[in-house]
Amino acid sequence: MPDVSHHDTELIAAAAQSIRDLRRHGCRVHSITNTVAQNFTANVLLACGARPSMTVDADEVEYFTSRANALHINLGTLDSGRRAAIEKSIEVANQAGKPILLDPVMVHVSPNRRDFARELSSSVHVIRANQAEMDSLGDSPASAVSVVTGPVDHVNWEDGSFTIERGSHLMDQVIATGCALGGLMAALLPVAPNPQTAAIAALGWFAFSGENAHRDSQGPGTFAPLFLDRLYDFDPVRMEELAR
Amino acid sequence: MPDVSHHDTELIAAAAQSIRDLRRHGCRVHSITNTVAQNFTANVLLACGARPSMTVDADEVEYFTSRANALHINLGTLDSGRRAAIEKSIEVANQAGKPILLDPVMVHVSPNRRDFARELSSSVHVIRANQAEMDSLGDSPASAVSVVTGPVDHVNWEDGSFTIERGSHLMDQVIATGCALGGLMAALLPVAPNPQTAAIAALGWFAFSGENAHRDSQGPGTFAPLFLDRLYDFDPVRMEELAR
Amino acid sequence: MPDVSHHDTELIAAAAQSIRDLRRHGCRVHSITNTVAQNFTANVLLACGARPSMTVDADEVEYFTSRANALHINLGTLDSGRRAAIEKSIEVANQAGKPILLDPVMVHVSPNRRDFARELSSSVHVIRANQAEMDSLGDSPASAVSVVTGPVDHVNWEDGSFTIERGSHLMDQVIATGCALGGLMAALLPVAPNPQTAAIAALGWFAFSGENAHRDSQGPGTFAPLFLDRLYDFDPVRMEELAR
Repeated sequence: MPDVSHHDTELIAAAAQSIRDLRRHGCRVHSITNTVAQNFTANVLLACGARPSMTVDADEVEYFTSRANALHINLGTLDSGRRAAIEKSIEVANQAGKPILLDPVMVHVSPNRRDFARELSSSVHVIRANQAEMDSLGDSPASAVSVVTGPVDHVNWEDGSFTIERGSHLMDQVIATGCALGGLMAALLPVAPNPQTAAIAALGWFAFSGENAHRDSQGPGTFAPLFLDRLYDFDPVRMEELAR
Repeated sequence: MPDVSHHDTELIAAAAQSIRDLRRHGCRVHSITNTVAQNFTANVLLACGARPSMTVDADEVEYFTSRANALHINLGTLDSGRRAAIEKSIEVANQAGKPILLDPVMVHVSPNRRDFARELSSSVHVIRANQAEMDSLGDSPASAVSVVTGPVDHVNWEDGSFTIERGSHLMDQVIATGCALGGLMAALLPVAPNPQTAAIAALGWFAFSGENAHRDSQGPGTFAPLFLDRLYDFDPVRMEELAR
Repeated sequence: MPDVSHHDTELIAAAAQSIRDLRRHGCRVHSITNTVAQNFTANVLLACGARPSMTVDADEVEYFTSRANALHINLGTLDSGRRAAIEKSIEVANQAGKPILLDPVMVHVSPNRRDFARELSSSVHVIRANQAEMDSLGDSPASAVSVVTGPVDHVNWEDGSFTIERGSHLMDQVIATGCALGGLMAALLPVAPNPQTAAIAALGWFAFSGENAHRDSQGPGTFAPLFLDRLYDFDPVRMEELAR
């Protein structure tokens, strides 16, 4: 029987409460994300009680970021227009003290993108990536919580860490599941007591919803709509299973 | 028992006939819409018997607009490239006397976008928006039919109005449902006797299809594909229920 | 009873083996495709065992193309940024001897796009199009295999041809099915003995999966997720039915 520290139990309870609070209070997320992931990410955010906006133009992101409660930056399908919009959005969010999540998609493939992500990383509160991407960023700033997702998910912060090994392999067979997870973490940042709690809440919400959707699906195609349904009717009490 | 005017009964019958005519004759819609909504809008148009094209480049929209029967302009994810393409498309459509629908997404958030929408509004035949967006546009030109959607949908034209209070709340939980509704209204413009009839046809088609899809769905994820199925096999006779 | 040549039987067996090899070895496809089709194409590629990347920026495509096993070029939603990225990607793929598929979407509508497609056609290994698009390209280079899709699909190469008349009409009611088919052909190029085998493998995989999905669906909405499921669990033995 695994040893569950008091600290973990508190974190899990706080994560469950963050889910309830997102549903109760809502959250406007301005999401600058890749064109492949936009639609699915928006549907995940709606299913979880958040309201997305996804404008990318540098002349307009100021208004959308000012109005949002959190900022979600995903570097997929990056181009010069997106770079300018991301810099402007982060500036506006930082000035207003709004939380920011960075998803440095594929930075291990493109040196240009990696350098850009390194510049941004000191201005954000959570970095979510796979192991190759996180390694490519080098030492991430101590100020940011890092979330490395994979068969096992690891959340690391200044003086603690948390590990989750749940979910369904079908989640990797649906494009943009990881991108949408980043969006949900961003949405939880304003209601959670700290970034690690938001990260754990999003990971658990995704993992249990994925397991349930897997049970009723016939493959990755039918999995995707069922996954949205299970996010929508997820019972936060299930978060307690993370302690087992 | 509500009093149904002779005028309303005629409108509803004309709306049902427009649905039949769209299916019989088809309609090419050139749709300049946001990247979040493109895929779902295209699938809605196909399910309803229309053929979408979605090219955005200012150097190419002329050819696609010339070939289309209707033009659908949606201001989501606006940028300078889209602005130029929209201006060119509207010019081409106006010269050829083709009907145009404008969906001024989020104009209440961005002043740049609002000013652009105001410039365009005198060149279009239908404006579809939510209440905040419509208020932000100010006095819409008398030449355009206005459609304000929400829990209750209102269609207003020079000497009449029509109200619909049907549908499912799950429609708001699927991104781009409103955007796709604008696309369908555009597709109905060439076959309907006037813009208000096209608007009523699209609103009823969406509302009844949404109610039926809701009945068989488990949440917003499974709702979306079922909604497309119900649009596809919708029986226009049901439009008569709008009179009840 | 149709006469099945020994040659056809060999082609069909090689196509079935290519499907097995794609699943076993995987394939990285760099796909520069239109924003309407990106999400569905990526999900088709994942369901079939390939790994897509979809970055479009000319400053980054070099890295993604270098790392990919095949290049998929689709001219939908073309603009100047996409043109530059396509030219760069093809240059990199040609230098490295990587196979390239071109899908000249809507070239019969836009003369600009047609001229661009003609320039590209001598650098690619497969051209997939509908009849109107293929006619508009003029004489395609003898070096490329041509695939003309429609109610009947025709694959033509230097000294042979193959015809398939299977599938479901619902495939035409889901946007981007043809675009995704091009992506799958590209993914099969590195594992197939020649381009015509890759084309036949993709056409059969799509056609039988479409027929099976049709059987269980209620319309085009529920068809799409079931189609992905049937691609995912497709049994290559069924390819033998192409000989009947």
